[in-house]
Amino acid sequence: MPATGTGPVDFYFDFSSPYGYFAAHRIEAVAAAHGRKVDWHPILLGLVFEVSGGRPLPSIPMKGDYARVDVARTARFHGIAWRQPAKFPVSGQAACRAFYWLAARDVECARRLARALFDAYFVEGRDISSPQVVVDVAAGMGLPGAALAEALSDPAVKERPRTETELAIARGVFGSPYFIVDGEPFWGHDRLDQLDRWLASGPF
Amino acid sequence: MPATGTGPVDFYFDFSSPYGYFAAHRIEAVAAAHGRKVDWHPILLGLVFEVSGGRPLPSIPMKGDYARVDVARTARFHGIAWRQPAKFPVSGQAACRAFYWLAARDVECARRLARALFDAYFVEGRDISSPQVVVDVAAGMGLPGAALAEALSDPAVKERPRTETELAIARGVFGSPYFIVDGEPFWGHDRLDQLDRWLASGPF
Repeated sequence: MPATGTGPVDFYFDFSSPYGYFAAHRIEAVAAAHGRKVDWHPILLGLVFEVSGGRPLPSIPMKGDYARVDVARTARFHGIAWRQPAKFPVSGQAACRAFYWLAARDVECARRLARALFDAYFVEGRDISSPQVVVDVAAGMGLPGAALAEALSDPAVKERPRTETELAIARGVFGSPYFIVDGEPFWGHDRLDQLDRWLASGPF
Repeated sequence: MPATGTGPVDFYFDFSSPYGYFAAHRIEAVAAAHGRKVDWHPILLGLVFEVSGGRPLPSIPMKGDYARVDVARTARFHGIAWRQPAKFPVSGQAACRAFYWLAARDVECARRLARALFDAYFVEGRDISSPQVVVDVAAGMGLPGAALAEALSDPAVKERPRTETELAIARGVFGSPYFIVDGEPFWGHDRLDQLDRWLASGPF
């Protein structure tokens, strides 16, 4: 049975989400294997939680303790580099702003920046809530650091993460990572297997 | 690398948990493939939530809506029979009492009853919060219905689910299904892949 669509996989994530980071390492290969593109949508989970009643993992009794074990083991299971950041979680505001500012100019470049920011945080332990760190990561990729630094305090750029998060909430997104393809929602890095089958053979 | 232990997989679940039901269909085969036994521990998630702050899925904004889609799709993904019960969730008190009463007499029989109760609820849509339904399911398997009916109102039998749940909480169990093997915790039906690797080749 053919897949129902040919549209992109919408990939929603928060820059402070470990499972979002894992998904960022894997989603492009899963989609490409079936001829699909991926649209990356960084969002601010803090705003989502105001609607959903969710909370950051470390603050949840019992589940927070488990999550530390699970995240590190899941990284090893999939062979993805991982180091628990000392400061966790952090705000993804600056990273989101940089992403959308760059995406308006060069989507592929913005995607590379997103991956670099994830690695900076979850491998190198750099505090990506700092606009300066975000600019440094971008500059390290050869992107125009000065123009980005200026953009990060532009009111329109500052507003964008909230707008994108509200659009995501309107589509039902309540966690990170969250995927929507052909109208079908998949929540969690551990749903990549079902997403893969969906792309391979259509609705099941 | 060999596994670190030869002990059983402790399998914690609530009789009203869809993902617990899926795990009940799959865990024995996963464990048996690596020469391990499974100890089944039905618990009452309601008591766990008093400690963990968790809530039943249907009551959680956004996540509740998603869960209805995810549960049905996950059943199809794994080829497990599934029908959304009209009354959901229900109390697992009567089912838990029956399980532990029977387990004290015949562990394998109690396991078969647990599977039959899961099927009665999640396939046939019978309300297993009713002691009479639990007795009927047991009697349908050839178990002594009258003795079970009497046992279900015995004070010691009635207390057992709470005691077992408290033991589970003390081990860190906060959801269903939840597995502990060789001291390592695995939460969720979607961690059977990591549990399988753990049993195959030891800690990773």
